[in-house]
Amino acid sequence: MEMNLNAQEKKAGFLQRVKAFLSKLKDGVTKRIRNIQKFGKDDPRRIIHSIKVGFSLTLVSMLYYVRPLYNSFGVSGMWAILTVVVVSEFTVGGTLSKGLNRGFATLIAGALGVGAVHLARFCGHKGEPIVLGILVFSLGAAATFSRFFPRIKQRYDYGALIFILTFTMVAVSGYRTDEILVMAYQRISTILIGGTICILVSIFVCPVWAGEDLHKMIANNINKLANYLEGFEGEYFALPEKISKETNSCVREYKSILTSKSTEDTLANLARWEPGHGRFRLRHPWKNYMKIAGLVRQCAFHFEILNGYILSDVKAPEDFISKIQEPCSIMSREAGEALKAIANSIKTMNNDSVCVNAHIENSKKAIENVKFAFKSSSTETEKDLLEFIPGVTMASILVEIVNSVEKISEAVEEFFGLAHFKETLDPKLSPELEQQHHHHLIHRGSVKPVLEGDNEEEYSSSSHVLVIVHDEQPPTTNEKTNLGAEKTRDNVV
Amino acid sequence: MEMNLNAQEKKAGFLQRVKAFLSKLKDGVTKRIRNIQKFGKDDPRRIIHSIKVGFSLTLVSMLYYVRPLYNSFGVSGMWAILTVVVVSEFTVGGTLSKGLNRGFATLIAGALGVGAVHLARFCGHKGEPIVLGILVFSLGAAATFSRFFPRIKQRYDYGALIFILTFTMVAVSGYRTDEILVMAYQRISTILIGGTICILVSIFVCPVWAGEDLHKMIANNINKLANYLEGFEGEYFALPEKISKETNSCVREYKSILTSKSTEDTLANLARWEPGHGRFRLRHPWKNYMKIAGLVRQCAFHFEILNGYILSDVKAPEDFISKIQEPCSIMSREAGEALKAIANSIKTMNNDSVCVNAHIENSKKAIENVKFAFKSSSTETEKDLLEFIPGVTMASILVEIVNSVEKISEAVEEFFGLAHFKETLDPKLSPELEQQHHHHLIHRGSVKPVLEGDNEEEYSSSSHVLVIVHDEQPPTTNEKTNLGAEKTRDNVV
Repeated sequence: MEMNLNAQEKKAGFLQRVKAFLSKLKDGVTKRIRNIQKFGKDDPRRIIHSIKVGFSLTLVSMLYYVRPLYNSFGVSGMWAILTVVVVSEFTVGGTLSKGLNRGFATLIAGALGVGAVHLARFCGHKGEPIVLGILVFSLGAAATFSRFFPRIKQRYDYGALIFILTFTMVAVSGYRTDEILVMAYQRISTILIGGTICILVSIFVCPVWAGEDLHKMIANNINKLANYLEGFEGEYFALPEKISKETNSCVREYKSILTSKSTEDTLANLARWEPGHGRFRLRHPWKNYMKIAGLVRQCAFHFEILNGYILSDVKAPEDFISKIQEPCSIMSREAGEALKAIANSIKTMNNDSVCVNAHIENSKKAIENVKFAFKSSSTETEKDLLEFIPGVTMASILVEIVNSVEKISEAVEEFFGLAHFKETLDPKLSPELEQQHHHHLIHRGSVKPVLEGDNEEEYSSSSHVLVIVHDEQPPTTNEKTNLGAEKTRDNVV
Repeated sequence: MEMNLNAQEKKAGFLQRVKAFLSKLKDGVTKRIRNIQKFGKDDPRRIIHSIKVGFSLTLVSMLYYVRPLYNSFGVSGMWAILTVVVVSEFTVGGTLSKGLNRGFATLIAGALGVGAVHLARFCGHKGEPIVLGILVFSLGAAATFSRFFPRIKQRYDYGALIFILTFTMVAVSGYRTDEILVMAYQRISTILIGGTICILVSIFVCPVWAGEDLHKMIANNINKLANYLEGFEGEYFALPEKISKETNSCVREYKSILTSKSTEDTLANLARWEPGHGRFRLRHPWKNYMKIAGLVRQCAFHFEILNGYILSDVKAPEDFISKIQEPCSIMSREAGEALKAIANSIKTMNNDSVCVNAHIENSKKAIENVKFAFKSSSTETEKDLLEFIPGVTMASILVEIVNSVEKISEAVEEFFGLAHFKETLDPKLSPELEQQHHHHLIHRGSVKPVLEGDNEEEYSSSSHVLVIVHDEQPPTTNEKTNLGAEKTRDNVV
């Protein structure tokens, strides 16, 4: 009886454990699936790209499935598969760069390989492998060495790799087959088929342009700077207990800019391979994005230093702080607004220097006010210099930031001069823009551009666009960016 | 007669032009060759790597040249060539990561492919290509999507690529051949042969370890910071006409640190694939290098801001500057010496915290002196705060730099705790170190370690190591680093 009970208990325990394990497994799997779903939703282009690759693979498999195609290409069809797998890159620029590199390198190396085989045949049966070996060794080593040169590495690295591969394959298999020309023809034609499929799919099925990504990335980075500057006032001048970690993390977005150089370089490199698209013409000044990005990063370095003063407990005496609070706030806020306007004008591809310059002028005026506050503090109080240091340093870094924002604005100005964007809006560019465009048409006429120098006091209020744009409805904060975009395009449509 | 002269003139002109062209061509070619030679000399490992690749290629060609080998592998030999070309990377870690990824991905995808072909055969002749097509599409798309996940991208990107490639090839060619198992066997064995050749050559013929590169890179970066701090005094306090552009460029080495994150990440990623080598054991804390590198970069950000004050024309009043010159100079110099000692202890893999801490203490004392100078200035003079700003900001950024150096030292300390370097010197590690080692043995005994807290005044002199190490010969500046290395290893040999 007791044993029976014991066995029953054991059984129940086992079942419970199995149940627990199953529910745990289920939780884990659903969690993982949710993660994957979220990852796909974050950038649906990833899912589209995966489907595109699957589609290209299925398409190229036809070389095997369809009898007439298989008869003409035979097992060489696998070169087409290989090409599709390797050349399919996320961006159009990546696919084009790999495809063209692969195509030209195969052609050149194939021709050289055939030449090498013919040359080696002059040397008799015994000499042939020796000559071929020497040629493979020396060309392979030379091409490998060439891959170290920065210029070749940047643009033709893949081409050099394929050159080594094709030359070695043709030269070496030429030793064993007499139909080398047929083989070379089959290989080259299948590689061309694979490459063409990839390039066509990547350009015509939901293309992802590296150039557009770069463009958006620069605009977003400038926006991140603006967010930091807008949050600065609340963080530095807030009472200690009010600084929450949450706002901190939101304002710290700019950190990604500090190390974004390699991503930018890659995108700019790929963008140069892309044909004209949207409003990016051929010979679009891709290099100039790097200049702007460099200045943006320089500005982010200043934030990194400023951060030390926000987080520090040692602050200047309160009466001094309260004196510099207003001009410093205006300085950071106006610089932030200028950056917002710059980011917007890049996003909408419309130069809006009037608005940008007005904000920069305002923040420069605030610099004068800070200086005045310094002057009055030093004459009024008898306190020692030491106590002022944190406040003074903070303010002078802020001044440097304003200068840095001015430099960014100049670089963007120069960029617009070079980029020659079309003067009309292309609503196809992005659905988001189209929506703004539509929105604009609804209350067209109610939005008036403002003249420079007109009511400067109003500029220094925090809701800048709302003041400039004399709109009928009081817009909510969510609409702010949209309205900004509207305003900048007002003289265009 | 005249016509004859004219013709002669023309001929002479033509000859001259040909000569000019030839000499120009010769100049261009020699210039280019010199450039290439210089490029190779800068890092001879590049030449060695090229020769290694050529050698591997020649070795793998034997699969074609040698009759018995060709009989057993046939045209599958080209997979070995392909593997050698693609897997041969500059560093051991790169080769291993690609080789292992390729090997495992081929095995898994090959097995799945064979399974897919058998499954499809159940569905009859008409259903076969449809089932295969669906499988290729879905697995291809899924594997492509997986490549977007950062974790997979970082370590298994190449494996996922090869998985897609192999699975598609096996599944698709299985439709046309019945000898799929033989084919799969030949392919996998040739890929293993190619991969093994690459890995053996890369490990046993003049290996380039990514881990060692990372280690040296971190030490060099810290050295670059030290150079900047040592040059700072001369640049900031120099008379304007004395600032030459040349010293500027020499001191500006640190700029490369600002954007070196991606290189460091890549090296750390590759280093994790490498087996234990030299004094880097298995499970060496590669991740901790990233922490140190982050702090080093943070310090470089401060330099970037400090630079603005060096180059600016607006400086504080001279009497104020002369007051803070000495403590500021000591601050930067001592922080620089501390960094030099840290870099040296990383290079020689010997913790020398006594020396580092002494320098940091000295620079901290100098901070107090700067503060004292501030205090006295504010009581003495009646000048306004505004004029002091540039000097005050410069000094307080310098204080931040000292704090940042202390953080670096702490991180390095922690790293040494984790790294468990062997306590004896391994003279095989690098010829440079061996030389230092030898040098040390010559006047062994003449070098005495100094006790902490002992003669602190002497520490603040600029030639710190010379004071600490009571050497017989007055060493030249060139030997300084060597002597530093010697000192740090004194209690070890």
